[in-house]
Amino acid sequence: MDVSALLTSAGINISVTSLLLSVYSILRKQPSNLSVYFGKRLASVGNRLDDSFSLERFASSSSWIVKAWETSEDEILAIGGMDAVIIIRIIVFSIRIFSIAAIICILLVLPVNYYGNDIIHMEISSESLEVFTIANVEEGSKWFWVHCLALHVISWSACVLLYFEYKSITRTRLAHITGSPPDPSHFTVLVRAVPWSSEHSYSDSVKQFFMNYYSSSYLSHQIVYRASTVRKLMNDAENMCQLVKNFSTEEKSKLSLLPCLCGKPNSFEVLSDESDSVRENIGFDISDLASEKEYAVAFVYFKTRYAAIVAAEVLHSENPMLWVTELAPEPNDVLWSNLCIPYRQLWFRKIAILLAAIAFMIVFLAPVAFVQGLTRLHQLSHAFPFLKGMFKQKYIKQLVTGYLPSVILILFQYAVPPTMMLFSTVEGSVSHSGRKRSACIKVLSFTIWNVFFVNVLSGSIMGQLNAISSVKIILNQLAAAVPIQASFFMTYVLTSGWASLAVEMVQPLGLVYNTMKKCVCRIKEDQPNGFLSFPYHTEVSKLLMFGFLGFICSVMAPLILPLLLIYFVLAYLVYKNQIINVYTTDYESGGKFWPIAHNSTIVSLVLTQIIALGVFGIKRSTVAFGFTIPLIFGTLLFNEYCRQRFFPTFTKMSAQVLTEMDRQDEQGGRMEEIYQQLRSAYCQFRLISQDLCKSGRMDHQGDQNSIRIHRIATCISDIWVIHPFYVDLY
Amino acid sequence: MDVSALLTSAGINISVTSLLLSVYSILRKQPSNLSVYFGKRLASVGNRLDDSFSLERFASSSSWIVKAWETSEDEILAIGGMDAVIIIRIIVFSIRIFSIAAIICILLVLPVNYYGNDIIHMEISSESLEVFTIANVEEGSKWFWVHCLALHVISWSACVLLYFEYKSITRTRLAHITGSPPDPSHFTVLVRAVPWSSEHSYSDSVKQFFMNYYSSSYLSHQIVYRASTVRKLMNDAENMCQLVKNFSTEEKSKLSLLPCLCGKPNSFEVLSDESDSVRENIGFDISDLASEKEYAVAFVYFKTRYAAIVAAEVLHSENPMLWVTELAPEPNDVLWSNLCIPYRQLWFRKIAILLAAIAFMIVFLAPVAFVQGLTRLHQLSHAFPFLKGMFKQKYIKQLVTGYLPSVILILFQYAVPPTMMLFSTVEGSVSHSGRKRSACIKVLSFTIWNVFFVNVLSGSIMGQLNAISSVKIILNQLAAAVPIQASFFMTYVLTSGWASLAVEMVQPLGLVYNTMKKCVCRIKEDQPNGFLSFPYHTEVSKLLMFGFLGFICSVMAPLILPLLLIYFVLAYLVYKNQIINVYTTDYESGGKFWPIAHNSTIVSLVLTQIIALGVFGIKRSTVAFGFTIPLIFGTLLFNEYCRQRFFPTFTKMSAQVLTEMDRQDEQGGRMEEIYQQLRSAYCQFRLISQDLCKSGRMDHQGDQNSIRIHRIATCISDIWVIHPFYVDLY
Repeated sequence: MDVSALLTSAGINISVTSLLLSVYSILRKQPSNLSVYFGKRLASVGNRLDDSFSLERFASSSSWIVKAWETSEDEILAIGGMDAVIIIRIIVFSIRIFSIAAIICILLVLPVNYYGNDIIHMEISSESLEVFTIANVEEGSKWFWVHCLALHVISWSACVLLYFEYKSITRTRLAHITGSPPDPSHFTVLVRAVPWSSEHSYSDSVKQFFMNYYSSSYLSHQIVYRASTVRKLMNDAENMCQLVKNFSTEEKSKLSLLPCLCGKPNSFEVLSDESDSVRENIGFDISDLASEKEYAVAFVYFKTRYAAIVAAEVLHSENPMLWVTELAPEPNDVLWSNLCIPYRQLWFRKIAILLAAIAFMIVFLAPVAFVQGLTRLHQLSHAFPFLKGMFKQKYIKQLVTGYLPSVILILFQYAVPPTMMLFSTVEGSVSHSGRKRSACIKVLSFTIWNVFFVNVLSGSIMGQLNAISSVKIILNQLAAAVPIQASFFMTYVLTSGWASLAVEMVQPLGLVYNTMKKCVCRIKEDQPNGFLSFPYHTEVSKLLMFGFLGFICSVMAPLILPLLLIYFVLAYLVYKNQIINVYTTDYESGGKFWPIAHNSTIVSLVLTQIIALGVFGIKRSTVAFGFTIPLIFGTLLFNEYCRQRFFPTFTKMSAQVLTEMDRQDEQGGRMEEIYQQLRSAYCQFRLISQDLCKSGRMDHQGDQNSIRIHRIATCISDIWVIHPFYVDLY
Repeated sequence: MDVSALLTSAGINISVTSLLLSVYSILRKQPSNLSVYFGKRLASVGNRLDDSFSLERFASSSSWIVKAWETSEDEILAIGGMDAVIIIRIIVFSIRIFSIAAIICILLVLPVNYYGNDIIHMEISSESLEVFTIANVEEGSKWFWVHCLALHVISWSACVLLYFEYKSITRTRLAHITGSPPDPSHFTVLVRAVPWSSEHSYSDSVKQFFMNYYSSSYLSHQIVYRASTVRKLMNDAENMCQLVKNFSTEEKSKLSLLPCLCGKPNSFEVLSDESDSVRENIGFDISDLASEKEYAVAFVYFKTRYAAIVAAEVLHSENPMLWVTELAPEPNDVLWSNLCIPYRQLWFRKIAILLAAIAFMIVFLAPVAFVQGLTRLHQLSHAFPFLKGMFKQKYIKQLVTGYLPSVILILFQYAVPPTMMLFSTVEGSVSHSGRKRSACIKVLSFTIWNVFFVNVLSGSIMGQLNAISSVKIILNQLAAAVPIQASFFMTYVLTSGWASLAVEMVQPLGLVYNTMKKCVCRIKEDQPNGFLSFPYHTEVSKLLMFGFLGFICSVMAPLILPLLLIYFVLAYLVYKNQIINVYTTDYESGGKFWPIAHNSTIVSLVLTQIIALGVFGIKRSTVAFGFTIPLIFGTLLFNEYCRQRFFPTFTKMSAQVLTEMDRQDEQGGRMEEIYQQLRSAYCQFRLISQDLCKSGRMDHQGDQNSIRIHRIATCISDIWVIHPFYVDLY
C-alpha cells in the first residue's frame, strides 16, 4: 500500500465521519428522536416528574462537544457510575501514553526509518508506506539504538502511568463505595448448592444452617424459585385476567363511592410477599409444590457488612461443592435466569465454553483469510486472472487495498460480541456486569487474535498452522510481518476507529427502531428504547484493541500514532456524550474493568518488546537486542507487583473499610432503615414491581386486586421476554 | 542394551540390596546403634521416663518385616501423623495401579510387542531389550488396539483409584483434625506486614488493630523479635555466665540448707515471659531498644477457631500488602528465621527462586549429558578412540552401559535435595512443613526434567535446544525415544530404587556420625541424633518419580512393571519400619502432600497418553490415535473435578467443622485450659525451652537463676546453630 492509498482511505473515512456527525447534530434536535439520543436524561426525568424538562437545552448543534469536554470526572461518576469513569480513564491513559509515544517516535524514530537505505525513495505520493517503518532501516545499522531508546521511554512511561492510574482508580473506587448510600449487596450473600434434604425444604435448610452457625448476624433469607412454578402462575394469571375484567368493573363502581377505604399504602407491598397476599385473596396455593418450586439457591441477608463478607469468604462445608457462598451482585445486576444452573455444572460449563470459543476463533479464520487476500492484490489477481484488468484502474486498486478489507472485517466482526455474550451467558455468570466483563475479555482476546495475529501471520493461514507450532518461527514471522502489515492497521484505525465512533453517535439501530415504532406502530409516547445500558464489552475491548495496535506499531511504524491520537480524542468526546445523554446505569461492576485494561496493556507492552526483540534479532543489532531483554523482565515484574498491591482490592472488600461503614450506620441509627430496604431489595420479579410501583403511584384510587393480578401477569410475561435464552434452553 | 546387561545390573543390585539389608539386621541388634535405628522410640521414651525400655524387643533380626507388615494405618497415623499416612497411601496406590498395569500389559501387550516384526529375534540372553517394547511392532499393524485398550484400562483404573484415595484421605484428614487434642495453631493467626507507626511500637499497633476490629474474639498476641536484640542478649548472657559461675556455687551451699524454699514450679515459666523475669532479676532492660527490637510480624491468638479462620481469610486493609494474615503453622512447625523476611520481598523472592531453579536445571545438564553418553557406547568410543579396546570386553561393556550411568546420576543427584531445600528456605516459607512441600515439588520437577526429559531427548542435548522450541518435534522425539530409552529406566529403578531403599534402611550417615560420637568424642549417652524428621521432600518425590516412570513405560515397555512392583513392596516395608522406628514427628503438614501426589499422577497419566498418541501417530495407527484423544480430555476433566471437589479442603478449614469443635470445647469447659496453653505455645526460643524443661525437671533442686541464664545462653547459641543461613544472609 502506498501513501496515496492511505490518503484515499483517510479521505473516505474523514468524509464519512464528518457526514455522520453532522447528521447526528441535526437528528438530535428533532423532538421525535429524543428517546434515541437522550435516553439517559429521559429515564432520570421519568423517575422525577417534578423536574421541569425543557427541550431547548439540547437545541444547539455543536454544544455537545463543549458539554462533553467540560463534564468533569466527578460528574461522570455521579451520572454513569464507576464503570463510566473507567472507560474515560482508559481513554485518558491512552491519550497520555500515545502523546508521549508520538512525540518520541515522530521526532526520533521516523527520520531514522525514512532515511534508512533498504528501499529506494520515490515521489512522496506513490511512496510505499514501508518507507516509514523499521523495515526500511538496513541490517546491522548503528541507528537501532534510537528504536531501543524509544521502546524504553514508552515502556517506562506506560508503567509509571499505569501505576498512578491503578492507584488513583483504587482510591476513587473505595471513595465511591464508602460515599454511596448503603448498598443492599454489601449485606447479602448469594448461597448456592444448598444440600437437598428429604425432611426440609431448601428454604428451611438455609434458615437452619445460618441460624445455627451465624445466629448473631443472620437477618433473613430469600430463596430463588423454579421457573415451572412461574409457568404455572402464568397460566393461572391468564385465567384470572379474564375473570378479573368483569370483577374490576363491578369493584370500580363501588370504589367511586368509597374512595377512602381502598388504595391504602399496603397495596404497594413488595412483590416478594406477593404469593402470600395473592393466595389469601384469590385462594391460589402454590405451597403444594414445595419440593418442586425452589432452587438450591438463596440470598441470605446479614445484619452487618462485615458479617456478610465473612460468610461470603469462608469455606462452609467439608464438601467444597456444598454451601458455596459469594457476595451477592447488586439487586439490579442479578442475572436471575443463570441462578437456576446447578453449581456442580459450572466448572464443566466453563471448560466447554472455553473450547467453544476456541472453535469459534478457528471457524472465523475463513473471512479473515479472504480479507487479507484483498490487501495483497498480486496474489488475488494471480488466483483470479479476470480481476487483473479491474485492478489496473488506480482508484479501484486504492479502494480495494485501502478501504474494503477493513470494512469487510468490521462487518464480520459485528457477529462477534453477541456470540461472546451468548457464550458468557451459557458459562453461568450470576450478574449482568460479570457477564459483560467475561464477554469483554472474550471479545478482546478474539479481536487481538483475529485482527492482529491472523492478519500478521497469514501469508496463507491454513497452510501455516503447522509452522505456528514453533515459538521461534512465530517470533521471526511476527517480527518480519508487523512492519509490513502496519499499513493495514492504519486503515483499520481509520475505518474501525473513526467511523465506528461516528456510527456510535448516530445510533442507527435505535433510530430505525424508533422510526418503526412511531411510523408503523403509531406509538407516540417518548419512552426510551428499553433503557439501553452501556455496551462495555464491545467498547472497552475496542479501546484496548486500539491501544494494543498503538503499542505494537509505535516503534515499528510510528505513522499510526497521530491517527490513533485523533481516534482517542474523538472517543473521549463521544463516550462522554453517550454516558451523559444516552445510556442508563442500571447496574455496575464497580470499576472491575480496570484490571482487564491493565492486563491488556501489559500484554501489549510485553508483546511489543518481544516483537522488537525479534526485529533487532533479524536486523542484527546486538546492542538493541541486549537492552530489550531486561525491559521484558522489568515489565513482567512491574505487573506482578501491581497484581500483589492493587488487584486484591478489586476482588475482595477490605474488612477495615466495611467495619467502619457498619459503625457509622449504627451510630447514625440507619440500620433499621437499611434492614427494611434489604428485605425487599432482591425480588425475583423485580423489573415489574418497579414498573408497577410507578403505575401504582399514578393510579392511587385503582383497584387493589386488579393491580396485583396485573402485576403478576406483567412480571411473568416480562420474565419470558427478558430471558428468551433461558426459555430456549429448558 | 541387551537382556544380559539388564540381568547384570539386576544381579548387582539384588546382591547390594540383600547385603545392605543383612548388614542392617545385624547392626540394629547392636545396643550402640540404638540411637541410629530406634531414634523415634528413644525419643518417645526420653519423654516418658517411667516407661520400662527393654532392648530385647528389638533383637530378632527378621522380625522388622513382620512388624512393618502388621502395623495398621491407624497405628501409623498415631505414630507418624498424617504425612506418614500419606506416604504409605502413595505406596499402596502405586502397588494397586501397577499390579493392574502389570497384569494387563504382561498378558496382552508384551506378547504383541515380542512377536512384532520390526527387529530380528536373537538368542534370548543377547536379545535387545527393544524387542519387548512397542518399537518392535511394525508400522500400520492392526495390533495397536491392544496398546490402546491397555492405556484405557490403566487410565480409567488410575482415575477411579485416585478418586477414592482422595475421598478417603480427605475423610481421614478431617477425622484426624477433629479427633486430635486442641491444636494451638487453630486459634492463632500469623499477621505479617504490620504497618510501621512513629507513635506506637508494632506490638501496640497489633493490639490496637485487633482490639478495635475483633474486640469480641481477640485474646492476645505475641510479637516476633529482631535478631539484633538476641545478639545483644547473647553478649550479655556470656558475661553473665561468667558472673553466675561463682554466684551459683554460693547459692548452692544455701540451697542444700533450704531446699524447700527454692525450685518452685514457677521456675519453669515459659520463655516468652523470660525477658520480664530476667529484667527483674538481673536488671537487664531491653525496652530501650523498643523500636529496634520488634519485627512487623506477630502471632495473634483468638478465643475460638472460627474467629481465627475468619481473621486469617478476610482482607484486612485497603492496601493488600498490609495486615496480611494467614493461619499460623503449628508451634513446632514455625520457621522462625523466615519470619524476619519483610512481606514486600516475598513475591520478588518467589520469582527470583523460580529463575534460580531454572538456571540450576540448565547447569545440571552437563553431568546428565555425560551419563547419557555412557549408555551409547559407540558414540563414546567414537569420541575417545582409546576406550574402544576396553569396551570390547563383554563384562566391562555390560557394567558401563547397565550400571554405571545410573550410579553416576544418583551421586550427582545427592546434591539436588539440599539445593532445593536452600531455594525453598530463601523463598520465604514460614513453616518447616511448607518448606518441605515446596522443596518436594522442586525436587520432583527437577528429577522428572533431568532424569526423564533430558535423558530421553538428548542425542546431543545442547545441539537440540533449538529444536525443543517446536512442540510437534518434541512430541515426535519423545514418542520415538521413550521405547528406546526404557532400558535405562529399568536400570534406574534397580539402582536408584532398590539399592537406595536398602541404603535408607542402613542410614550410613547416621551410623558414621554415631560411631564418630562414640569413638572419637567418647559420648556414651544414647541420645538420638538430633531427632531426625522424615525427609518427605526427597522420599515423596522419589516415589512419585518412580510412579511417573511406571506410567510412561507401562504400555511402551511393560518389562519395567515387575521391577517397579518389587520396588514399591520393598518401599512399603522400609518406610513403615522407618516411620515406626527411626524418624520423629515434630511437625506435620496434615496430609498436604497428597495434592502433590495427585497432581503428579495426573501429569504422568496425561504425558503417557500424549506420548502414546505420538507413537500411534508415528506407527500410523489411526484407530488407536483416535481413541486416545478423548482419553486425554477425560483425564484433564477428572483432574479439574477433583480440584473443585477435594482440593479446597486441603488449603482451607471448613467453618462448620471448626464451629462444632469450638462448641464441644466450650460445652466441655476446656476453653480456659486451651487459652492457658495458647499463651505459651508460640515461643520464639522454643527449641531450647524444651531442652531446658527436661533438664529442669531432672534438676528440681537446681538454682532458679542459673537455670534461667543457662536457658537464655543455650537458646541463643542454638538459634545461631539452627539458622546458619540466616546469619550468613544478614
